Amino acid sequence: MKNHYPLSVIRLIENFSKLPGIGGKTAERLALHVLNAPIEEAESLAKSILELKKKINYCSKCYGLSDSDLCHICSNHSRNNKIICVVEKPADMTAIEKSGFYSGLYHVLHGVISPMDGICPDKIKIKELIRRIEENSVDEVILATGTCVEGETTASYIAKIFEKYSIKLTRIASGIPIGGDLKYIDQMTIQRAMENRHAV
Amino acid sequence: MKNHYPLSVIRLIENFSKLPGIGGKTAERLALHVLNAPIEEAESLAKSILELKKKINYCSKCYGLSDSDLCHICSNHSRNNKIICVVEKPADMTAIEKSGFYSGLYHVLHGVISPMDGICPDKIKIKELIRRIEENSVDEVILATGTCVEGETTASYIAKIFEKYSIKLTRIASGIPIGGDLKYIDQMTIQRAMENRHAV
Repeated sequence: MKNHYPLSVIRLIENFSKLPGIGGKTAERLALHVLNAPIEEAESLAKSILELKKKINYCSKCYGLSDSDLCHICSNHSRNNKIICVVEKPADMTAIEKSGFYSGLYHVLHGVISPMDGICPDKIKIKELIRRIEENSVDEVILATGTCVEGETTASYIAKIFEKYSIKLTRIASGIPIGGDLKYIDQMTIQRAMENRHAV
Repeated sequence: MKNHYPLSVIRLIENFSKLPGIGGKTAERLALHVLNAPIEEAESLAKSILELKKKINYCSKCYGLSDSDLCHICSNHSRNNKIICVVEKPADMTAIEKSGFYSGLYHVLHGVISPMDGICPDKIKIKELIRRIEENSVDEVILATGTCVEGETTASYIAKIFEKYSIKLTRIASGIPIGGDLKYIDQMTIQRAMENRHAV
């Protein structure tokens, strides 16, 4: 590639290649698109990359992504502020929002407890969650950390701490995904789904 | 999507979506990657987009892509300047360069003659090609425009003009691609390959 393009094209190809799922061929196609695109489109793309890095920070209440002090969920007065859904990362918050089903608030831990990786409880936003519970009147905390070992450990740890508060603690259900074919589902999930079976 | 991300994330997702082959989901993934990437990586990407648009122009000799007056091929004295390969667009030049086989110079027409689209011969770089032939001592001109109707018309047109010069005029061969299975090759290509058959 090095010999076939001017330096500025090669540099852009290299930078596009660093993005996830973008290989050399795609990066080349994207760079050639930018080359032929109107200057406004290219400038808009470059500007939005820089703006994102400059403006984005974490909501001072829930630690979700935000470009102001409070995120669009925490600052929305029509949301139910008596329920807090605890998630691992901002993307999980977005996933739940997309379902359109949940109308409460969130709390992003920014990680899970994982002693193997040196992540102890004080490295994630658990004390901030405790402060929120103590300072606000909360009815329910939904533990929506992942269903892997670390996610389960984190949920159990928080559940243990919260025993002393008179708050309803719930854990999101795990089982067979909707539309999932049993023959493609892993054993752990089937075991969990069988354990959590309920009367119909 | 609009409700689930802060504005600066949405803007970047929208801008990524404008790139070819990047759908909404991929654009979202790329934007989240930029969000988590080191500031240097994001700045480097944004900078290379702007630099490309600012620096890139066309070589004053062959009209290929270049970030200086002469492109890296025209300014390379080890190339054979007695042979000029005429192509439609800069990408064709890159494709031939990648084969690593050709050591002559190029001439990029920036289009093909297409009366249906209002592209007459004076809208593409044919007069620039004539000037190059007249001002330099050239032994051979290879017509490597596409094998579609417009490409063939353009090649014929240039061949007709160049009759009066004592220059060897050649046309790239068309036929079955290497490794191509006959049963998947279109009829026009098979017909051409049969017509152009040669003794073994």
